[in-house]
Amino acid sequence: MEITENIQAVDLKQLIEAKQITKLREIFEDHNVVDMSELVGELEPQEALFLFKTLKKDQTSEIFAYLPHDKQETLIQLFTGPQIQEMLDALYDDDILEFIEDLPANIVKHVLQSASPKQRVELNRLLSYEENSAGSIMSTNYVVLKEKDTVADALMKIREQGKEAETINYCYITDNRKVLRGVITMRNIVLSSLNEEISELMDSDLVMVKTDDDQEDVAKLFEKYDLTVIPVVNNDSCLVGIVTVDDIIDVIHEEATEDIHKMNAIAPIDKTYLESGVLEMAKSRIVWLLILMISATFTGYIMSGYEEVLAANVTLSIFIPMLMDAAGNAGNQASTMVIRALATGELSAKDMLKIWWKEIRIAAICGTIMGIVNFLRILLFMGETDITISLVVSATVFITVALAKMVGCTLPVVAEKLHLDPAVMAGPLITTLVDAMSLMVYFQLTVHFVL
Amino acid sequence: MEITENIQAVDLKQLIEAKQITKLREIFEDHNVVDMSELVGELEPQEALFLFKTLKKDQTSEIFAYLPHDKQETLIQLFTGPQIQEMLDALYDDDILEFIEDLPANIVKHVLQSASPKQRVELNRLLSYEENSAGSIMSTNYVVLKEKDTVADALMKIREQGKEAETINYCYITDNRKVLRGVITMRNIVLSSLNEEISELMDSDLVMVKTDDDQEDVAKLFEKYDLTVIPVVNNDSCLVGIVTVDDIIDVIHEEATEDIHKMNAIAPIDKTYLESGVLEMAKSRIVWLLILMISATFTGYIMSGYEEVLAANVTLSIFIPMLMDAAGNAGNQASTMVIRALATGELSAKDMLKIWWKEIRIAAICGTIMGIVNFLRILLFMGETDITISLVVSATVFITVALAKMVGCTLPVVAEKLHLDPAVMAGPLITTLVDAMSLMVYFQLTVHFVL
Repeated sequence: MEITENIQAVDLKQLIEAKQITKLREIFEDHNVVDMSELVGELEPQEALFLFKTLKKDQTSEIFAYLPHDKQETLIQLFTGPQIQEMLDALYDDDILEFIEDLPANIVKHVLQSASPKQRVELNRLLSYEENSAGSIMSTNYVVLKEKDTVADALMKIREQGKEAETINYCYITDNRKVLRGVITMRNIVLSSLNEEISELMDSDLVMVKTDDDQEDVAKLFEKYDLTVIPVVNNDSCLVGIVTVDDIIDVIHEEATEDIHKMNAIAPIDKTYLESGVLEMAKSRIVWLLILMISATFTGYIMSGYEEVLAANVTLSIFIPMLMDAAGNAGNQASTMVIRALATGELSAKDMLKIWWKEIRIAAICGTIMGIVNFLRILLFMGETDITISLVVSATVFITVALAKMVGCTLPVVAEKLHLDPAVMAGPLITTLVDAMSLMVYFQLTVHFVL
Repeated sequence: MEITENIQAVDLKQLIEAKQITKLREIFEDHNVVDMSELVGELEPQEALFLFKTLKKDQTSEIFAYLPHDKQETLIQLFTGPQIQEMLDALYDDDILEFIEDLPANIVKHVLQSASPKQRVELNRLLSYEENSAGSIMSTNYVVLKEKDTVADALMKIREQGKEAETINYCYITDNRKVLRGVITMRNIVLSSLNEEISELMDSDLVMVKTDDDQEDVAKLFEKYDLTVIPVVNNDSCLVGIVTVDDIIDVIHEEATEDIHKMNAIAPIDKTYLESGVLEMAKSRIVWLLILMISATFTGYIMSGYEEVLAANVTLSIFIPMLMDAAGNAGNQASTMVIRALATGELSAKDMLKIWWKEIRIAAICGTIMGIVNFLRILLFMGETDITISLVVSATVFITVALAKMVGCTLPVVAEKLHLDPAVMAGPLITTLVDAMSLMVYFQLTVHFVL
């Protein structure tokens, strides 16, 4: 159930036109910031600018954080230095980072110049972490406690630091050198008596990550341990940030999208479908299309080698498209299941034997059924076909479906062993390989039994 | 960084053998429950049973919740009625539900009989929600406040209800008829003064879902609004549960896996790769393999129609595998990108024109490059080929790559419009369609220009 169904961008436009400041403030006060941000995204830059001058700073900052990247870019160029600084003050570091990272270099400079000196140093440090690392998605706004604090001290500190912090549900305990010692939940604090000491209550066996850990690995820890926050430490085990679950959900989504694209021969692009330019998208697709087309030269060679066989019996070529597709689909299914299970961490390279044993049996079942149904299909729909050819085609279906399943389940694991991305060993590449295999099997059987 | 690298299942086995109860309790106290659960999963049932008798109830329950389904099933059958009841008491409803749902009916009955009468009613109600609905993944353990409560009252209630609640970070405000009126965060409570009234502090503009909403839609709301908890209401707007982000992460993962499988002609299976039986997996694959193979009869018909053309010039058939793969890959790329963007909510059926305009341009670019490179490829690797044939093959590449992109981007949107799952309009189906198209284009051009 979404809440703003009744308010439209056109209403906002009218109120802005009429400079109905009180009414506008009321509307934004009463509605969800994400929904309002969607409407602001539909306004003209000058209208949005008027809103940003009219509304409360903490509200405009949040609205800004939820705007699409291109709108952020347009608006930030219209902002004055003090306006930018006010906005940066009201945002969490990880949100600032998220929009800064996608801006052109000259605008980033403009934004950083408007930041307070302290914040500028902080932002520059965060910008220096490698893309897709834990450091690049972490927030530096969290509550820090000491082991000697009592629950009463802790509540006081939370009141002080809590307004700035991205979460107060988890508070972190560090020693004097900022080394992370433990974590305590707000629940634990609230349910304990005021004079208990934090050191007694805190959990010192905590799951943490390093700044240069890959965000995909961080996401796996969130899943495995059902976390909502994870602390990030540097090489000296000092606490330097936290990663929150809302950012991890974005990571999980991006990684799934990237895998799906890779599995279908599309090079990764950072932007979404609508945000990407035509040239950019063509580039992300053409590379694999060319590689696969040129590899198909190989199937061409195989076909040329059997030109006389084909010339002697043209009916043989009728079955080539079906054989290629059946083998491709069968191989594709096996590689898809193995790639996904490797990506979610269910399988690892050491499971090769288990996978083979499972796929051999599946291959036998699928191959047999496919072979028999194919024989019946030819009898039924292509009655005039020679019975020997029907048998050879059906045998080819059985053999290639089975072979394709084995190739499909093996290559992703080999890629994983070689520390390559298994997702590349998917559909298109498997299809090209398996096509060549099925042609060879088909022609060999033909030479022996038909001619 | 994981913590238990130093402890192995074999250590546990020895300690259990030696009945080292104190040492075992210490180890489980000091280590993360998820890691320990992984080790318990490697023990024999009798060893695990000894542990479950030895350790604290709240600990064993958590360990149990993290065990794989098959281990849970084995253990639950070894538990006595009172043991089951103790464990059910210590678990949140949504965790109980998760393991009950996968048990065979007779064991579910055994578990429900061991539950307290009150809990049994509650579990039966939860079990009646449709699979994959918000009701089926919600928890009924949360903190409820009243509008007239002061912050001091609220803190008292949180202390009372907090031990049972799955989260205290969000507390929900209901009226006397249990109608949901608002939400307040723990942060807000802690940062306010004790005599303020909850009605003044609470946020009454909240995002909520209904019990029968689809879990995929619930996940989309979590993403859109950056939520960590969402309240679930019934048809009378009464609060009946909450869904927490850890369950949503599982949903996002499952949905991505399901989409990836569907896109590669694999019918959805509930279980993971290693958990699924061979017959089950063969079944999930064979249906689409057969459908696609039988559809390939169509390409066979097209080929038969041009048997004379093929007989007249056998060289023509050499290019068929490459043409089919190139078209299949190109169509696949377009359908993949559109399917994923539809799944993440970036695109909807009403974006058809935008998609066409984008894909037409991408198709023109990719088709042109592919056509030219193909011509050069034939010159380079297959020098003896007739120049007219090279030109016809290259023109076919251009036309079919472009057509395939258009078919690939259109069919998923059509499926979405017809309220079918766009993921089915992916690779394998697109390939079969596009194969037929490319053969027709190829033979038509051949008839006109080569013969």
